Amino acid sequence: MLETAELGHTVSKSAFDRAEPKLREALVNAQYALLQGRHKAVVVLLSGVAAGGRGETAKRLAEWMDPRHLRVHAFGPRTPEELARPLPWRYWQALPARGRITVFMNAWYAEMLRARVSGRLDAAGLDALLHTTREYERMLAHENVLLLKFWIHLSKEAQQARLAEPDRKRRALWGASDGAWNRGRRYSKSHELWEHTLRATSTGEAPWYVIEGADARYRDLTVGGILLDTLKRATQAPQGAEDAGEGAARPVAPAPRAIDNVKLVRDLDLRQTTDSETYERELPRLQNRLAELLQRKRFKRRSLVLVFEGTDAAGKGGAIRRITGALDPRQYQVVPVASPSDEELAHPYLWRFWRQVPRQGGVTIFDRSWYGRVLVERVEGYCSEYDWLRAYSEINDFEQDLVEAGAVVCKFWLQISKAEQLARFRAREKIAFKRFKITEDDWRNRKRWPDYERAVADMVDRTSTELAPWTLVEAEHKRFARLKILRKVVDRLDEALDD
Amino acid sequence: MLETAELGHTVSKSAFDRAEPKLREALVNAQYALLQGRHKAVVVLLSGVAAGGRGETAKRLAEWMDPRHLRVHAFGPRTPEELARPLPWRYWQALPARGRITVFMNAWYAEMLRARVSGRLDAAGLDALLHTTREYERMLAHENVLLLKFWIHLSKEAQQARLAEPDRKRRALWGASDGAWNRGRRYSKSHELWEHTLRATSTGEAPWYVIEGADARYRDLTVGGILLDTLKRATQAPQGAEDAGEGAARPVAPAPRAIDNVKLVRDLDLRQTTDSETYERELPRLQNRLAELLQRKRFKRRSLVLVFEGTDAAGKGGAIRRITGALDPRQYQVVPVASPSDEELAHPYLWRFWRQVPRQGGVTIFDRSWYGRVLVERVEGYCSEYDWLRAYSEINDFEQDLVEAGAVVCKFWLQISKAEQLARFRAREKIAFKRFKITEDDWRNRKRWPDYERAVADMVDRTSTELAPWTLVEAEHKRFARLKILRKVVDRLDEALDD
Repeated sequence: MLETAELGHTVSKSAFDRAEPKLREALVNAQYALLQGRHKAVVVLLSGVAAGGRGETAKRLAEWMDPRHLRVHAFGPRTPEELARPLPWRYWQALPARGRITVFMNAWYAEMLRARVSGRLDAAGLDALLHTTREYERMLAHENVLLLKFWIHLSKEAQQARLAEPDRKRRALWGASDGAWNRGRRYSKSHELWEHTLRATSTGEAPWYVIEGADARYRDLTVGGILLDTLKRATQAPQGAEDAGEGAARPVAPAPRAIDNVKLVRDLDLRQTTDSETYERELPRLQNRLAELLQRKRFKRRSLVLVFEGTDAAGKGGAIRRITGALDPRQYQVVPVASPSDEELAHPYLWRFWRQVPRQGGVTIFDRSWYGRVLVERVEGYCSEYDWLRAYSEINDFEQDLVEAGAVVCKFWLQISKAEQLARFRAREKIAFKRFKITEDDWRNRKRWPDYERAVADMVDRTSTELAPWTLVEAEHKRFARLKILRKVVDRLDEALDD
Repeated sequence: MLETAELGHTVSKSAFDRAEPKLREALVNAQYALLQGRHKAVVVLLSGVAAGGRGETAKRLAEWMDPRHLRVHAFGPRTPEELARPLPWRYWQALPARGRITVFMNAWYAEMLRARVSGRLDAAGLDALLHTTREYERMLAHENVLLLKFWIHLSKEAQQARLAEPDRKRRALWGASDGAWNRGRRYSKSHELWEHTLRATSTGEAPWYVIEGADARYRDLTVGGILLDTLKRATQAPQGAEDAGEGAARPVAPAPRAIDNVKLVRDLDLRQTTDSETYERELPRLQNRLAELLQRKRFKRRSLVLVFEGTDAAGKGGAIRRITGALDPRQYQVVPVASPSDEELAHPYLWRFWRQVPRQGGVTIFDRSWYGRVLVERVEGYCSEYDWLRAYSEINDFEQDLVEAGAVVCKFWLQISKAEQLARFRAREKIAFKRFKITEDDWRNRKRWPDYERAVADMVDRTSTELAPWTLVEAEHKRFARLKILRKVVDRLDEALDD
C-alpha cells in the first residue's frame, strides 16, 4: 500500500500558487457549511513516518481554515491522569462535536506502533488492538464522526535526506514525538509493520490515504483536497443519527477524488523492450525453472494463484499461454472471468472465485478476477460506492485466507498506451480469427480510460499488500511483458519454497 | 449471555399443538415469498452444547418447510479435499443462492471451539479467528446473506439428564458430531469459553439467539418463530445489491420478536423480603466491609463502576445512598443520567459516559447509564433499529475497555411489580418533597411496560458477559434489594482484589 507514495510526487511552486487560494477559499466555505449543518464531526488523523512533515501539514491546515473551529491535538506520552484511565479515554476527551474539525497527531496508531517496536506489545497483541481499532472506527463512522486517516509517507532515501536537514535532525534527536521506532536505519523493518497495520485497518468506513510527504506542496495540496472532498460530502449527506428507521444513510467513506495516485500507472516506462534473442533464450529457461519448482516436494503443501488484470488488448492471454506452456495440464486450470452468470449473481461476489481456489499442489490462473468489483463494477456503476469501497478490505481478507493456507498469490496489472491499444484493436478487426476478441464493450471501455486509470491506481494502492503484492507490467512490448511476468512468478515461488 | 437459557422454559403439548399448524403454514408461505423475491439467501446456523437437540430442530425445520428449497448441511471432520484448501472454502461451497435457505450444523463455531478445547488453538489464536469471523459475517450481511445464529443451550443439570437418556448416550459416546469438548464434566470450563465466543461475535449484523434446548417444543417453536420473523423481513426489505447509490438499505439484523426471554424478568420472585432486624445488622456490616475494601492498597490500581437501571420508582436512589453512605466523598462520584444535553447529542452516545470513567482508585456510580440506548431510546424510537442493535456489541466493547483498565463493573437491574409501581407513584404525588420525582414521562413509560420488559430481557441477554455481568434485583422490598446489591458489590470487589 505504500509504493505509490514512494514515487517522487511533486507540485511546482507556480502550480501551487495557482491552486492554493482556490483550495483555501473552498475549505473555509466547507468548514462553515459543516458548522452550520452540524451533521458530522470530522477527525483528521495525521500519522506516518518520521520527518514526513505531519507537523507542517497540520500547521498549513490551521492557516488555511478558520482556527476558531479547527483544533490541532498532539498526543504526547501519557500523563498520570491518562495513565490512570482506560487507553481510549484520552482520545474520547479530544473528540470534536458535530460541526467541528480536530486534527489528531500521534494518536492511537503512533502509540500502538511504538509499543510494538519497543517490544511492549507482541505480534498477537498488536493484531488484537488493530481489530479493536477497526470496530472503534466503524462505530465512530456510524455515530457521525468522519475519520480521515492520512499516512504521510517517505521512501527510505527521502527520509534520510529529510533527517539530514539541520533543524530536523535536532528535533529528531531531541526525539519529541517520533520516537526511535521510525528512524531511518530501522526503515526496512518498520516498512513491513506499517504495511501490515495499514492493511488491517483500511476499511470501507475509514480507509487510509497514503500521501507522499517529500514535497511539501504536493503533500499539503493533496491532504487539503481530500479534506475538502470529505467536507463537501459531509455537508451534503443526510443526517444519520436523527433519521430513525432503515432509510438512514450508511456511513460511506468518501471516494478519494483528490489523491493523485494515477501517477503510478502513468509513469510506467512503456518503452522497455526485450530483443528476440534474449527472449528466445530466457523464455525456455524460465519455463523450465517454473516447471521444476512446481514439481518440488515442498510445493505439495503450497499452491499458486495467479491473477491477470489489464487494459483491454494488453496481452493477458498471450502471457498466460507462456506460463501454461511450461506446465502439466493436470496441475493447473485457467479461469476466464466474464460477466457473472445468474447463479453467480445470486451469491456474494467472492463466491465464484472461492469455488476455483486451487487445492494444495495446484495452480489456478485467473484471467480477470475478483478485482472486477473495484474495476468494471465501480466504473460502470454496477455496484454502489459503499459496496466497492468495502471490497478492498474484503479482498485483502480473502487473499489472506489463501496465503494462510499456503498459496503464493501473484497479481499482474498489464498496462499499454492508448495509442497501442488502438493499433491492436484495429489489427484484431482485420484478422478473422481474432475478430471475436474485439467487441462494443472494448470500445466503450476505451472511452472510460481516465476512470479506469483512477480505479487501477486505487486498487493497487489499497490491495498491494505484503502478502499479495501487485506487479505492474509494462506490456507495450509483449516479449518484455512476458518475461517480466514469468520471472516474477519464478522468483516468488523460489522464495516461498525456500522457507 | 447464557443465563436466560438456563431458566427451564417449557411449552405445553396443547399450546404446541395450537401453535404448530399456524407457524408451519406461515413458514412455508414465507419460504415461497423468499424464493420468488430472490433478494436474500438465508443461512440458519445451529450451534450449541452437546445434547441440546440441534439435530432434532434441524429435522423439524425440514418437516415444517418445503424440503426442495431447504437444505440441511452438517459439517463433519474435514475431508482430504477440504483439508487441501483454505479453511473457509467448505463453507463457501455450501452457501445457498438468494431465495434459498440452508441449515448449517457444526459449522465454523463448532470447529473453532473444538480446536480451542483440544489445545490446537491458543487463546490469542481463537480471538484472531473470532475477529475474522466477525468481518466475514458482516460481509455476508452486506452481500444479502441473512445469517441466523442460534446457540442451543442447556443448563448443566439439563445436559446431564439428557446425556443420560439411553440412545443419546450411545450417540454421544459414538461421538459423531459433538466431540468431547462439550460433554457434561467439562461444562463449567466450557461455559466461560461459550460466553466469550458469543460475546465476541454477537454483532448488529449477526447477533446470537440463545435458545434453551431442554424442552423440545419450546426450542423448536422459538427457533421457528425467529426464522419466520426473519423471512418476513427478508421478503419485505428492498434489494440491497442491485440498488446502486447510498440509498441501499443497511443490513439490519431482525429484532428477535419471537424469542421468549422476558421470562427472565417475569419469573423473578418479588416476594423475597428481609426483616428489619437482619437489615439493621447486615447493612452496617456490609458498608464497613465495602469501605475497607476500597481502602486496600490493591484498589489503588483498580476502580469500581456501578450501573443502576430499573423500572421507574424501583428505588435506585435509595440503594445508591446505602452505598455512598459507606464511602469517603472524595473517592466516589454519582452521575445521574437524564436526557442528553445539546453538547452530548453532538457526540457519539458513549461520549458522555467516557467523560465520567473513574480513574484508578476511584468509584463512579451511574444512576441510569449507556443502557439508555437499548432501553428508552429503543422503546421510544429515539434511534433507529440498526443503531440500538449495534449498540449491544459496542457496549460490550466499551465495558471490556473498562475491565481491561482494572475496573470492576457491576450492573444492577431493579425490578418491581406494576402494582407496586402504581402504589409508589401515588405515594410520591402525596408527599410534597417527592412530588418532583414523578412526571408525565413516568406515567407514559408505565403504559409501555411490555415494551420495556422486552427491551430489558434483550439487554440482559446480550450484555450480561463474563466480564461485566448483570445482577437482577427483586426490588419490591427495599431492604431485600439494598442488601442484595451491597452484598454483590462486596463479593465482586473481594474476588477482584484477591487475585
